[in-house]
Formats: sequence, C-alpha cells, structure tokens
Amino acid sequence: MQHHPGTHDVRITGLGSYLPALMHDNATLPPLDEPIAPGDLDRIGVDRRGWAGTQEGVAEMAVFAARRALARAGADAADLDVVILTNWTQRRYLPDFAPTVARLLGARRAFAHDLGCACAGFLYGVGIASELLRNPRYRRAVVVASEQTSRRARPGSRGTLILGDGAGAFVLERAAGDGSGGRLIDYELACDGEYAGIMEITDAGWIDTRIAQRELCELAARSIAEVSRRLLARNQRTLTDVTWVIPHSGTAGVQAAIVRALALPAERILTNYASVGNVSSASIPVALDHFIAQGRVRPGDVVLSAAVGGGWYAAAALYTIGELAPSLVAA
Amino acid sequence: MQHHPGTHDVRITGLGSYLPALMHDNATLPPLDEPIAPGDLDRIGVDRRGWAGTQEGVAEMAVFAARRALARAGADAADLDVVILTNWTQRRYLPDFAPTVARLLGARRAFAHDLGCACAGFLYGVGIASELLRNPRYRRAVVVASEQTSRRARPGSRGTLILGDGAGAFVLERAAGDGSGGRLIDYELACDGEYAGIMEITDAGWIDTRIAQRELCELAARSIAEVSRRLLARNQRTLTDVTWVIPHSGTAGVQAAIVRALALPAERILTNYASVGNVSSASIPVALDHFIAQGRVRPGDVVLSAAVGGGWYAAAALYTIGELAPSLVAA
Repeated sequence: MQHHPGTHDVRITGLGSYLPALMHDNATLPPLDEPIAPGDLDRIGVDRRGWAGTQEGVAEMAVFAARRALARAGADAADLDVVILTNWTQRRYLPDFAPTVARLLGARRAFAHDLGCACAGFLYGVGIASELLRNPRYRRAVVVASEQTSRRARPGSRGTLILGDGAGAFVLERAAGDGSGGRLIDYELACDGEYAGIMEITDAGWIDTRIAQRELCELAARSIAEVSRRLLARNQRTLTDVTWVIPHSGTAGVQAAIVRALALPAERILTNYASVGNVSSASIPVALDHFIAQGRVRPGDVVLSAAVGGGWYAAAALYTIGELAPSLVAA
Repeated sequence: MQHHPGTHDVRITGLGSYLPALMHDNATLPPLDEPIAPGDLDRIGVDRRGWAGTQEGVAEMAVFAARRALARAGADAADLDVVILTNWTQRRYLPDFAPTVARLLGARRAFAHDLGCACAGFLYGVGIASELLRNPRYRRAVVVASEQTSRRARPGSRGTLILGDGAGAFVLERAAGDGSGGRLIDYELACDGEYAGIMEITDAGWIDTRIAQRELCELAARSIAEVSRRLLARNQRTLTDVTWVIPHSGTAGVQAAIVRALALPAERILTNYASVGNVSSASIPVALDHFIAQGRVRPGDVVLSAAVGGGWYAAAALYTIGELAPSLVAA
C-alpha cells in the first residue's frame, strides 16, 4: 500500500468535560458485598467517581461538555455541521441520543449520529469526524463522549469502585486561515472480532469479563501498543517525539501494562483515573481537560492518545495542544 | 455557505442482499389477536416477510449480504479498509456487531463500527463511508444493513404483518482507473431531535408509535422531500433527471405520502415492500438488488434513494447504476 501519513489539516479548537454533581469518595460509596482490604483498595487506585443523577442523562451530560468545548472554541452551535455522540453504557433500540444532543445544543443545521465502539468510541469518533471534514461542505464538528459507566457495575461489586460517569468533547474544525487550535496529526483505527466474547453484559445489565484480568490487561496493552506504533511509524515519529501519552484509563492494571508495553517512563503517561474512575469513552477528553487546567499539559505539547474497548476495538490519535481559553473545570 | 456539490469519485461496485430462509406469507404467519378484514390486509400491502432463524443473526445475515456484494465487485474481503454495519433492531451494550462481521468476512485489515440511525442507517453509512474514502489510505468499504425488524413487533399485533428481517450491502470504492461501478453522485444527511419521542420501544421491546399514523406518514414524506430537494438542487438536478426513486419503504401509507410530497408519477417509485415487508435500514439495498435482478433497474439509470428513521433522521443519496455481475437473488 502507498504511504499516506497524516490527515488533512484538522484542528482541535475546543475541549470541554463534565462530571456529575455527585462524586462518591470511598467513604460515601454504598457498601460492597464483601469488605475490601485497604491494600486492595489502593491497588484499584480510584478515590472518587461520579454517579449521574436524574438530570444528568447521557444527552444532558453530553450537552454540558459540548457547550464548554464550543465556548472555548469561540464557536456557535448553530455553525456545527456534524455532531457525533459516543456512548455504549446506555443503550436503547431507538431513538438514538445524538439528534437530541444536537437539538439541545442548538446545532440546527448539523447532522448527528451515535457511535458505540465501547471505550474506544471517542477516538473512533474523532477519526470519522476528521474525514467528514474533508468534504468542503463541512467545516466544524463536535465529537462528544458521554457515559453512565457506573450503571454497568453490579451494586455491591468491586466494579462500583472503578466505574464512574462523565462526558468530554472536542470541537474539530477544518483548518481556519489562522491555523489556530491543536492539530490532529493523524489517527489509527482497528478492531478484532476474535475477541468479541471477552466482555459481555449480563441480562441485568452488569459488565462481565470472561477472561482473567491479567489476560485482559495484556491484551489491552498489546492492542494499544500496536495501533500506537503503527500510527507513529506512518508519521515518521517515535515515542520520544511525544510529550504525553494520555490513554483510555481502563484500570490500574491496564495502565501498568501499557507502560510496560510501550517501554515508557511512567511519568509520561497521564490519566486522572484516581479522581474520576473509568469513565469509558469519555476518559481521554476528561483527562485532557483536567491536565490542561492544571497547567501540566501545555500548548505545543504533542499527545498520543490510545484506547481499547470491548468489541474488540483499538484506536489511537496523535495531536498537538493549541492555545485554548481557560478550562471550565477545576484544576 | 459556499456551493460544493457532489462527492469525490466514489463508485458503487458491488451490491448484495439476503432474506431469511423462512418467509411467511399471510397464511403461515401466526394468527393476530384480532382477525383482520381482507380490505385492511390489502391496505397494509405486504404479502411476504422474513423471520430470521437462529443461524441468521444480525452478524450472519450481514455477512451473507456483504459476501454477495463483494463477489459482484470482484473484491476480496481482505482488501477492505472499512466495514460499517447498520442495525438498530438488535441492540446490546457490547460487543457491537461490526467487529464480528469483519472477522466472519475475513476483512483482516479493516476497521469496523456499528451505526444505528434507525431506518436511515444505510444511507447514513453510505454517506460516512464515502467521506472515509477521501483518505488516500482507504480504498474500499462495505456498508451493510442487517435488521431483525420482526422482533420489534408485538406478537399478535398488526406490526407482525409489516415488519420483516433481511440484510443488504454496498461495496463502495474510491474510483478505480477504469471508472467502473455506479457513481455515488452525492448524499444528504439530516436529523431533528424535536421528533425524538414519536417512536419508542416498550420495555418488552415492541415498537410503539406515539403519534397518529397519518401524522407519521406526513412527517416522513415531508422529511424525505426536504432532503431530496436539497440534494437535487445542490447537484443542479431535478426529479426529471432521476430514473427511479427507491425510498426506504416504511409503510404503504408512507409510500403514498412520498408520491404526493414529491409530486411524482407513482410508477417511478420502486419498493419491493409487498414481498419483504419493512426491513428497516436494509430496505434500499434489498429493493435495489431485487429490481436489478428483474431487469427493471438498468446500468446508466439515475436513482434517488431517501429514508427517514425514528430519532428523527432523514437521509438521501443520488447515484447511478453501473454494470454489475448478475445478482444472486431470484428475479
């Protein structure tokens, strides 16, 4: 195949996130079936996770995050051409959520659609939106991930410690004349149906992993390393050109396996997993908003984000951080 | 906004469809709660509809249809870059169906994702795939709709007369040197969350329409007329340039309303609704395969397809028919 690195010039001009009003710490979380030893709690590594309330459905959280992203892009929802909503933790036959998100935003001329792709949904959405923006008819897209991951944990299970709710959004624009915004350098999407059965949902709606956690961590890390290496190689870059790796957080075990698989100094991987839990497809924009607000991730930094998801999906994106208006999240 | 008609040169090089082994006629269909008068049965207008068996899941039907489409394109699944599966009638949290469809097809290097968009899913998928093919990395996509619509009808309800199962697929390719295949001239996608609540699914999984059938028919026809007119106008064409209108079939009432809304001679609208029922997002490729096999739709014909779906979605595509290997469906 011919060598075709990079995307056309797509800019990340806005970024926003949203966490539920109710953030459970380990003391307020409803008790587990079996008490957990402090050492195990440390190993799980989550101190806080959100539980969305009745006013914080998938569509509403998506709108809160997307509005913040639009505000920072200085963009009006009425000028959006595309809205992609990623969510797998609340599913219904119909209607999809995206048309409602577009309506609530006031994105009157946009078309909109839902995307699943489990925890890899956000990067899948970013990749697809970037290609839509090649069409001269489309100029501006919102990709927003909104997940009620907590609802997929069996009450009383250790999953309730890990799984949290939240939303995060990018505004993507075909490069404006001024070249503002971070640049989406390139992305890579993959899937492997061989592993379709390793994560399923019980009839009651709880997540059920059908392979050992250790195997899952290794598969996740291997998949993330593969798409990341392919992406970097195509763009004549290596990990030394990357300021930060901001992966989908998964679990502490997955994060450790990624560090090993990429042979990366642990301090170059950023997640805010400890303070939000696993927010599934929203994890990357939620973490990015957090670390930009903290001043840790700065304009000009080069970020590699990668995610895996039950399906089996793998995805990666390489992008730079642009000048952004101040975040609306607490640092 | 600037005037940007048309897509880049995307060809429809393959087309395939699949209907279940079990096709119920009105005599074999399980009895309704209340017997139906012959006049009402005629007005419903469906003589036959498929009920997918245990070996005909959403993924399996998709694979049958996609293989037929690939065979007619003379393409190998291993050369696919993208697989988009549209389905809303079987939903689960995870895994999605598309990675399994890609695996069963042998599309080893493709990325794949599911798309909902209700009955408008296939045209949404065609539009999105056509933009993905702008990236020089991607050359060939399959968009396949696979629906078990019959499962969304309450047993004993009149819905069981209308709703049927099936799958249909396009192979789309960035234009090869020889310019073979029908050309996707352009497409138009839209949504309106104002109408998100008009079709819902009961807790038992049955479809429930919350507005009067007459209103639904008018809304469907108005939406189809709007996207169709916008699409035609952008491409400096009118309905007189179109050989056939092949819409999502919906119901007989929707079809009649489309004829009125487009002010079109009824004989220029083609659906095979009577012999397959409402197969949701699969309806357009299923009908196209049927009418090409019959010799009614011929190479060089210009087709306008349009669809609406609960969400609320509307979509249209304008394309020409290319030379195709003989269909694998019975004429």
